[in-house]
Amino acid sequence: MPIADLAQRLREFARERDWEQFHSPKNLAISISVEAAELLELFQWSRGQDDWECMNDDAIRASTAEELADILLYLVRFADKAGIDLERAALHKLERNAAKYPAEKFWGSDRKYEA
Amino acid sequence: MPIADLAQRLREFARERDWEQFHSPKNLAISISVEAAELLELFQWSRGQDDWECMNDDAIRASTAEELADILLYLVRFADKAGIDLERAALHKLERNAAKYPAEKFWGSDRKYEA
Amino acid sequence: MPIADLAQRLREFARERDWEQFHSPKNLAISISVEAAELLELFQWSRGQDDWECMNDDAIRASTAEELADILLYLVRFADKAGIDLERAALHKLERNAAKYPAEKFWGSDRKYEA
Amino acid sequence: MPIADLAQRLREFARERDWEQFHSPKNLAISISVEAAELLELFQWSRGQDDWECMNDDAIRASTAEELADILLYLVRFADKAGIDLERAALHKLERNAAKYPAEKFWGSDRKYEA
Repeated sequence: MPIADLAQRLREFARERDWEQFHSPKNLAISISVEAAELLELFQWSRGQDDWECMNDDAIRASTAEELADILLYLVRFADKAGIDLERAALHKLERNAAKYPAEKFWGSDRKYEA
Repeated sequence: MPIADLAQRLREFARERDWEQFHSPKNLAISISVEAAELLELFQWSRGQDDWECMNDDAIRASTAEELADILLYLVRFADKAGIDLERAALHKLERNAAKYPAEKFWGSDRKYEA
Repeated sequence: MPIADLAQRLREFARERDWEQFHSPKNLAISISVEAAELLELFQWSRGQDDWECMNDDAIRASTAEELADILLYLVRFADKAGIDLERAALHKLERNAAKYPAEKFWGSDRKYEA
Repeated sequence: MPIADLAQRLREFARERDWEQFHSPKNLAISISVEAAELLELFQWSRGQDDWECMNDDAIRASTAEELADILLYLVRFADKAGIDLERAALHKLERNAAKYPAEKFWGSDRKYEA
């Protein structure tokens, strides 16, 4: 289901429950952060530090899929309320990142993330 | 650009820079949380508490679009590395939410979020 | 119980369980973020937007106290492992904030938080 | 400077700038999360994954101290506004954790964090 269709479904979902009133920028931004932290919590200690093997565990995999879904749903809802084209914004950002981090200069280096 | 294409582009992006090594579940989950907090920071005090008018401000709108894009890019990257179909997971979650919060029972109420 | 004593207690707590191995900067920073999001979740929708009346609810008050405690414990643990004097750092930051935001210039304004 | 004195200083700081109006539970909880994510960002990729050596770098150490301070200041401010004794809440939680995770049963194990 493409993002535009998800946005439409979420619009109906909110309308059917009269939840539009709760969907301010502040509240939806909070929701995205809260769901992102629930994903992060799955990898709080040893798990997922070095590789993706933990995804072979069915319970971890299901929890991960659910948290990713929660984040996406709030993200799509936020963009829809804000009138922002999420896919276009992502593509635009990807292009800027490509220009900012030329492959030959940043090969194997995470120094880009340094202040 | 659909999610599947974004995932493909991000895969190439990481490969070209030898950044695969940094993309563990833990690190990508951290990145999603960090970007979510940057979105949240835009609405830290008065802004965006009651309505979406702040989106008429070009600078706020551009910053919002950029943070939404950052979150989506890391989200798509995480799902791709994990082998999780993000759109299917979102649709699945949406259906479970619809069953969990019947419209007539949760009309205008945010009590679902109570412990 | 002063912060120095809490740090000492947490040191013993980790040693007695052989949990030192999990207490890397990355993992403890994750823990602080995860607990901060659990606090935030209490105020995800309508609650606590305008005033502090919600603190009269015993259940909310107890949950809030517990989340604040969790954040403080990980914060104290992080500072202790890093060899940073938390109280001195806080006082130092408070003094810099006072210089950065002169009262007469920032009276009643949250524009300091604008980009 | 003990927590009670920090709380007193923060009270004056807010009053002198008429910032009380911004200090709702929701906004202060957002601030704690935002600052926690700024700490986390310092350890987003390779840094601080395995040990505390990164703290020997003066710039990292100073940034870390500043982020820890920011979190503590908002935490103390939140507890003060809520009328919660932060140190007592922390001690109480520490005692509950000791009961919940008996040393002999959780020796060297992070499975407590599993669902």
